[in-house]
Amino acid sequence: MLDHETPYATLREVSAAEVRAEIRAGRYRRHTAGLAPGKLQCNLAIVPEEVALDFMRFCQRNPKPCPVVGVGDTGDPILRTLGSNIDIRTDVPQYRVYRQGNLAAEVSDIKDLWRDDLVTVALGCSFTFENALIEAGIPVRHIDEDKTVPMYSSSLELTPAGPFGGTMVITMRPIHKSRVSDAVRISAAFPQAHGAPVAIGDPGEVGIADLNQPDWGEPVEVRDDEVPVFWACGVTPQNVLLQAQLPLCITHKPGCMLIADAGERADTNVLSRYPTQDKTN
Amino acid sequence: MLDHETPYATLREVSAAEVRAEIRAGRYRRHTAGLAPGKLQCNLAIVPEEVALDFMRFCQRNPKPCPVVGVGDTGDPILRTLGSNIDIRTDVPQYRVYRQGNLAAEVSDIKDLWRDDLVTVALGCSFTFENALIEAGIPVRHIDEDKTVPMYSSSLELTPAGPFGGTMVITMRPIHKSRVSDAVRISAAFPQAHGAPVAIGDPGEVGIADLNQPDWGEPVEVRDDEVPVFWACGVTPQNVLLQAQLPLCITHKPGCMLIADAGERADTNVLSRYPTQDKTN
Repeated sequence: MLDHETPYATLREVSAAEVRAEIRAGRYRRHTAGLAPGKLQCNLAIVPEEVALDFMRFCQRNPKPCPVVGVGDTGDPILRTLGSNIDIRTDVPQYRVYRQGNLAAEVSDIKDLWRDDLVTVALGCSFTFENALIEAGIPVRHIDEDKTVPMYSSSLELTPAGPFGGTMVITMRPIHKSRVSDAVRISAAFPQAHGAPVAIGDPGEVGIADLNQPDWGEPVEVRDDEVPVFWACGVTPQNVLLQAQLPLCITHKPGCMLIADAGERADTNVLSRYPTQDKTN
Repeated sequence: MLDHETPYATLREVSAAEVRAEIRAGRYRRHTAGLAPGKLQCNLAIVPEEVALDFMRFCQRNPKPCPVVGVGDTGDPILRTLGSNIDIRTDVPQYRVYRQGNLAAEVSDIKDLWRDDLVTVALGCSFTFENALIEAGIPVRHIDEDKTVPMYSSSLELTPAGPFGGTMVITMRPIHKSRVSDAVRISAAFPQAHGAPVAIGDPGEVGIADLNQPDWGEPVEVRDDEVPVFWACGVTPQNVLLQAQLPLCITHKPGCMLIADAGERADTNVLSRYPTQDKTN
C-alpha cells in the first residue's frame, strides 16, 4: 500500500542514489531493469554469520552463477564498498524472507528483521552483460518482448561448500548464428556478471527437455537462424540457499535489485589519469 | 638437507603434478618461476577459521592485490578445486610460519602444524600476466636480468575488513612508452592475477620516494624511453596478515609458489565445443 508511487519513467531520469532514496522512502517497489544505466545492479543474499564463510566459499567455487561484488561486515547494514549510504535494510524495492527453506514473507524493508549476526552478500547480475550485448547491436529477445528471461534448472553440477550445493540455474537467450562469437566475447568481459556462456546449442546437453517450458520466467522463440545460448543465472544462489534450509535467509525479489553507485564495468581506466604518457614515442 | 635435489632444468620439462610430486618427496625446495608453463601459480595464506571470513571479505574488497583463486574447506588440507590431489601440507617448496606477526620458522612441509581449524586461501600471482606480457613482446626487465621484482610499500590505502587493513604493496616494471597501453590491456585481462596497473608514471603519487630503493626485491633501471608501471603485489596479503598479529598464519616463501593443475587463463573456451555453430550464416 503506497501513499504515492513514483512512476518508473521518472526514475529512469535520475541517479542511483536518487532511485535508492525513492525506494527507501517507500515510493517505489517495482523492478529495477533499465534504472541508473551504467551502474552495477546486484542480486542479494543475506545469511547468518555461522554459514557466511561456507557461502563465500561456495561463491568462490562457482563464480559464474555467484559473482560476489560486495560483502558487508557482520551486523552492519551499510554496504560501504558499493556506494555512498547504501542501507541494505531499506534500499531494495522488495525482499523475500525464507525460513527453513520456505518463503515466509515478501516485504519492502527488513528493518525489523535485521540482526547483529547477519552478513550481506551482493552478487553481480545479468543486466550488465545484457546492456553490453544491446550496445553491440545484439538484440535480447525477452527484453524486446517485455518478458522475464526464461530460466531452467540444468544438469550442471555446482561445486559444493558446507551446506551449499546442487545444480546450476541457467538462462537462455537466442542469438543469431552470426553473432554467437561476439556474444561470448562480450559477456566474457564481465566475469562479475556471469561472464561467458556455460553452454551453446543443444538444450539436452545441459539437461533441458523442452525450451518452451522454463522452470522460471517465460519462454521465448528460438528462430531458425538462431542458436540458444545459456548463461549462469543469479537465481542459482537463491535456489541453493533455499535447499540448505537455513533458519533464516533474505534475498531480493527477482528483478527488484540493489542499485549500487559503483559502475558495472571493471576498473581498467587507470590510463585516463595518464593520457600523455602513452603512445608518445 | 636434501638427499637428492631434482635440477630446476629437469622440472621445466614435466607437468604440474610431476613438479608437485618432486616437491612433496622433498627433492625440490627452490623457486617455481617458469615451471609448468600455462598453469596457475598461487600465493598462499593459511589462517585459523575464526579470522577466515574476515580474510575472505578483505580479499573481496581488495581484489587487485588479493585475487582469490581457491579456498579449502576448514581443516581439509586437500585443495580440491585447483587440481588433482593437491596437498597443501607438502606441495609447496618452502613455507613461512608466523606467530603473533613474527616469522617463527621457514619449513619445507607443514604436516606437523596442520590443524582442524585451518583454512587455506590460494591467491593469483603476477607470473600469469608477466607470461602474457612476454608473449606479446613486452620485455619484463627483472626476469631478463634474473632479479626479484622490485616491491614498494605504497601510500595506496586498502579497504579494511576485521583485523585486516593497511596499505598496498606494489611492484614496478619499466615499460616502453609505446607499449604502456598494451601492457594495461593485457594485464587487465587477468583480474585473477592482479589485473590492470594501479598507477602509471610518477612514483611520488603512490608514496614512493626513490625507485632505486625498493622495500623488497631488487631495483631495476627505468630507461629514458620507459615509464614505470605499478601493479598490485601478492606480498600485500602477507604483509596484512603479519600486521594483524594472528596467533598463527602460514604463507609460502615468496617465489616458492603452489602450482595448480588449473590453467592460468579464465575459462572462456566454451566455443571450442561448438565450433560449427558459429559464423555459419
